[in-house]
Amino acid sequence: MNSKLAEFLKTRKAVIEQRLFSYIQELQAPSSLKQSMLYSLQAGGKRLRPILVLALLHAYRKKEADGIPVGCAVEMIHTYSLIHDDLPCMDDDDLRRGKPTNHKIFGEATAVLAGDALLTESFKMITTSVSTEVSAEKRLKLVNELISAAGAEGMVGGQILDMEAESRQISLEELQSVHEGKTAKLLSFSVIAGAILADAPSKEIEKLREFSYHIGVAFQIRDDILDLEGSEAKIGKRTGSDMTNGKSTYPSLLSLEGAKQKLIEHIQEAKQIISQLSLEKELLCEFCDMIADRDH
Amino acid sequence: MNSKLAEFLKTRKAVIEQRLFSYIQELQAPSSLKQSMLYSLQAGGKRLRPILVLALLHAYRKKEADGIPVGCAVEMIHTYSLIHDDLPCMDDDDLRRGKPTNHKIFGEATAVLAGDALLTESFKMITTSVSTEVSAEKRLKLVNELISAAGAEGMVGGQILDMEAESRQISLEELQSVHEGKTAKLLSFSVIAGAILADAPSKEIEKLREFSYHIGVAFQIRDDILDLEGSEAKIGKRTGSDMTNGKSTYPSLLSLEGAKQKLIEHIQEAKQIISQLSLEKELLCEFCDMIADRDH
Repeated sequence: MNSKLAEFLKTRKAVIEQRLFSYIQELQAPSSLKQSMLYSLQAGGKRLRPILVLALLHAYRKKEADGIPVGCAVEMIHTYSLIHDDLPCMDDDDLRRGKPTNHKIFGEATAVLAGDALLTESFKMITTSVSTEVSAEKRLKLVNELISAAGAEGMVGGQILDMEAESRQISLEELQSVHEGKTAKLLSFSVIAGAILADAPSKEIEKLREFSYHIGVAFQIRDDILDLEGSEAKIGKRTGSDMTNGKSTYPSLLSLEGAKQKLIEHIQEAKQIISQLSLEKELLCEFCDMIADRDH
Repeated sequence: MNSKLAEFLKTRKAVIEQRLFSYIQELQAPSSLKQSMLYSLQAGGKRLRPILVLALLHAYRKKEADGIPVGCAVEMIHTYSLIHDDLPCMDDDDLRRGKPTNHKIFGEATAVLAGDALLTESFKMITTSVSTEVSAEKRLKLVNELISAAGAEGMVGGQILDMEAESRQISLEELQSVHEGKTAKLLSFSVIAGAILADAPSKEIEKLREFSYHIGVAFQIRDDILDLEGSEAKIGKRTGSDMTNGKSTYPSLLSLEGAKQKLIEHIQEAKQIISQLSLEKELLCEFCDMIADRDH
């Protein structure tokens, strides 16, 4: 990985994590609930979603400070979704990033509630933790974008479609709409939120929605490929589970080579869009390459 | 029940339900998800929380229109909490208001997700469905109040305390803080949200926080009494379960007579506060009596 991106990822990850953890620690809430919320927030992860918010601000040459709480909000949503996804009644996973899943440590009831609390509190990161330089209208816009990305019309809806698709062969089109909801919309929120905070022109915001669609699909294709080719040690969970479960994936519908080709196409489309915008292209293009090449 | 309150309850219930159901029906989301969300929203209930928002606007002699989406938001939060509470890993209830619980009909995974979706979408009722007469600052204030009432520092926190208190004898003080989080804070949101929408003086808003604390505790005491004395047919679920489960309740800590006395005291305190405010007292005082006397 290019050293500029590596440096960006490393420094911003630290800032995001510090803010995330201190927000939870300062809540006036039962300590067992806070422990359960913190456990999953501290379980690692690349913090790609919050870092994308900051990368957009950086690319538009703006201060990143207000991107931090907004990035924390999307990371809290992502984390709640992992806790609920891992529950016995959902994917029934014992491991996540090489550690026992939340319900394995805290029990199912607390895991459900920790997810509920992370979801609820995430919005407060946007409504109260950004500086007064961000107008109330802009905060509301960010909250609305996050609801659209995370709610019935976004991630939760995608999760339902994914469950319904589990036991049958689906078309490529159906697979796209599963992942658009399940993965792409939350990544898209990060991009759009960064652009809104940066006061990007509205035409560019629409272009960035297309950009984030492509990186969202690319992200998912890479995920499916990693499930076939990846290292369990690096990913921190069992691989091969999609095939064992008879789940439709990009490789199962397009062949492994076809999926790899599709991944390259989406990354090229994403970079093509970036090249048309009034922002610093380098970091975002490296971001695209990282999504295509990541090994976990 | 006095006919003025009865008329208010009946007409406002219809308006709230219409708005709630149409919001869900119009979501661009998988139909199974919408069905599951609607099932629990349509399972009945008195809609006390949204009606309280409208009652405050009425008492301050203001238009009720913007109270409707805000009331829908709190009803969606209340409904999501019931769906998650009923899950096998939580209270494991098969019946709610005389009907099979959400997971009994739709399965646990969909029930978890329907709860998540109701929680997420609830905020959108505040951010986008009120009229432009309500400023962005005021919308943000309402969202923040709802997060405080529903999140780690409110309802979810109270739920955790309730679980932790289940198998042991707790003090009256501990019982109060369980119910403050679990029940009173969401009822309090309704009162405060109505007052904020009505532009009530900030001193009165603080008085109304005390008022809502008393009706919240009174509500819970009545709940505990109904679990001992109520009619299963009217309540729509098993009674006597608190005692069977060895759960601490107001009657178990204060005796049945002591709990009834405490209920009267809280209602008197609530009415005493109302008598000091610049609003129409009649409807709110009748509301207090209804909370004390309700049979379901």
